[in-house]
Amino acid sequence: MAERGRGWARAVRGLLLDVSGVLYDSGADGGVPIAGSVEAVRRIKASGLKLQLCTNETQATRESFVRKLRALGFDIAVAQVTAPAPAACHLLRERGLRPHLLVHDDLVPEFAEIDKTNPNCVVLGDAAENFTYANLNEAFRLLIGMEKPVLISLGKGRYYKETDGLKLDVGAYMKALEYACDIQAEVVGKPSKRFFESALAELGVPPEQAIMIGDDIVNDVGGAQQCGMRALQVRTGKFRPSDENHPEVKPDAYVNNLAEAVDIILQEL
Amino acid sequence: MAERGRGWARAVRGLLLDVSGVLYDSGADGGVPIAGSVEAVRRIKASGLKLQLCTNETQATRESFVRKLRALGFDIAVAQVTAPAPAACHLLRERGLRPHLLVHDDLVPEFAEIDKTNPNCVVLGDAAENFTYANLNEAFRLLIGMEKPVLISLGKGRYYKETDGLKLDVGAYMKALEYACDIQAEVVGKPSKRFFESALAELGVPPEQAIMIGDDIVNDVGGAQQCGMRALQVRTGKFRPSDENHPEVKPDAYVNNLAEAVDIILQEL
Repeated sequence: MAERGRGWARAVRGLLLDVSGVLYDSGADGGVPIAGSVEAVRRIKASGLKLQLCTNETQATRESFVRKLRALGFDIAVAQVTAPAPAACHLLRERGLRPHLLVHDDLVPEFAEIDKTNPNCVVLGDAAENFTYANLNEAFRLLIGMEKPVLISLGKGRYYKETDGLKLDVGAYMKALEYACDIQAEVVGKPSKRFFESALAELGVPPEQAIMIGDDIVNDVGGAQQCGMRALQVRTGKFRPSDENHPEVKPDAYVNNLAEAVDIILQEL
Repeated sequence: MAERGRGWARAVRGLLLDVSGVLYDSGADGGVPIAGSVEAVRRIKASGLKLQLCTNETQATRESFVRKLRALGFDIAVAQVTAPAPAACHLLRERGLRPHLLVHDDLVPEFAEIDKTNPNCVVLGDAAENFTYANLNEAFRLLIGMEKPVLISLGKGRYYKETDGLKLDVGAYMKALEYACDIQAEVVGKPSKRFFESALAELGVPPEQAIMIGDDIVNDVGGAQQCGMRALQVRTGKFRPSDENHPEVKPDAYVNNLAEAVDIILQEL
């Protein structure tokens, strides 16, 4: 696909990149860069294209996430990362919501300034090892006890790939709580339109001049296209061959990896 | 409701009773009988009405479940219990399926005779403390690795009440795996029609002469009504006042508890 018809690569001024599965495969060991991705990020920056990372990462604060990426060789600044937790804090303040957090320990500092007494909503992130039976029951009881339960989910991904295999993502646990309480969660993060729009605002490029590159056919590709951007799916990370027959979402192109996408985009500049 | 119009109580020959929330409130301590229920079961038996327990209980084998009920004072035999695990074993044998089990430790002996090597399906029960992040990821990986994932769920309840509070039921975890794998589980247990039909066969009474009594508006009441039975909701167990405004299911009557239902039914005999 990437080799045929490169119309998709024309008139680009900025790139939004998903991180896990595009830049690196995450894992308990800190993860490993995907071959060619460190060099690809360097070439993007050297080209003068604008660059913003657009991630549903909720296992760490943006600061520690960026530290990890830099340790892997990616030359990225904190301001270049759009992530769900800061967006959720904005929403909580706007609506006077006091969250009970079911999130990863390392994400908790993002909510340091938020009043968490006497919770009137639940914020769900990719809590990983914190997805215990006891913690899920606790979040459920708080929700079912509210007159109008409010569940805010930091993303709705199905699963992601770590170095030791596929893991259930926050979306699976969101569905469990939605079903148990007979409610609909509000999703902050990809594929929410509002989230992509804030990433584009931070990128400083209108949607028609931006390309999203991700490994998630629905949350990266589908979400970005709904904002008027072009979107590529990489064949790394959680990509599965069956994604190429997705009934609803068709990427503007498939590429084998970020490096290939950048090759083509830079040739078309 | 129970006091007005007792047409629902006429021409009854047999009763199907849900167990948790009707006979007793379950809990780590073995649970406690609901006031009047031990005596109500005794009166049903003395009346000559047929009696069968129809439960989605999957935290124990039928044998140990009956031992627990007997210790609480309920005069029940193993053959009087229709439960999902034996029904699932029947289905597994019929279709040559070899399960990976994500169930409560105490349920495992029900599957002793079933080939579990090289699994080609996942059987999900109310695994309680076995609903760990690691176990859910393992079940997910097995499913997503199958060409055509088969997930068999022992019930699809949203939640249930234990002595220390509400707990997420198997249905919530079923939804998590369904969403992650983009599949539909096959439900063995209430509210499956096939399951109610086998309970009726064991009761030995046609649906129009049987009444189901449960605390779950959808799985007990709705399921039984779809088989042509009358069904009552008790205001014990997980009953919540909002159940009385359920958009789809209307019980034939509400009763405060099993004892009240039995009072009325025996008066009409």
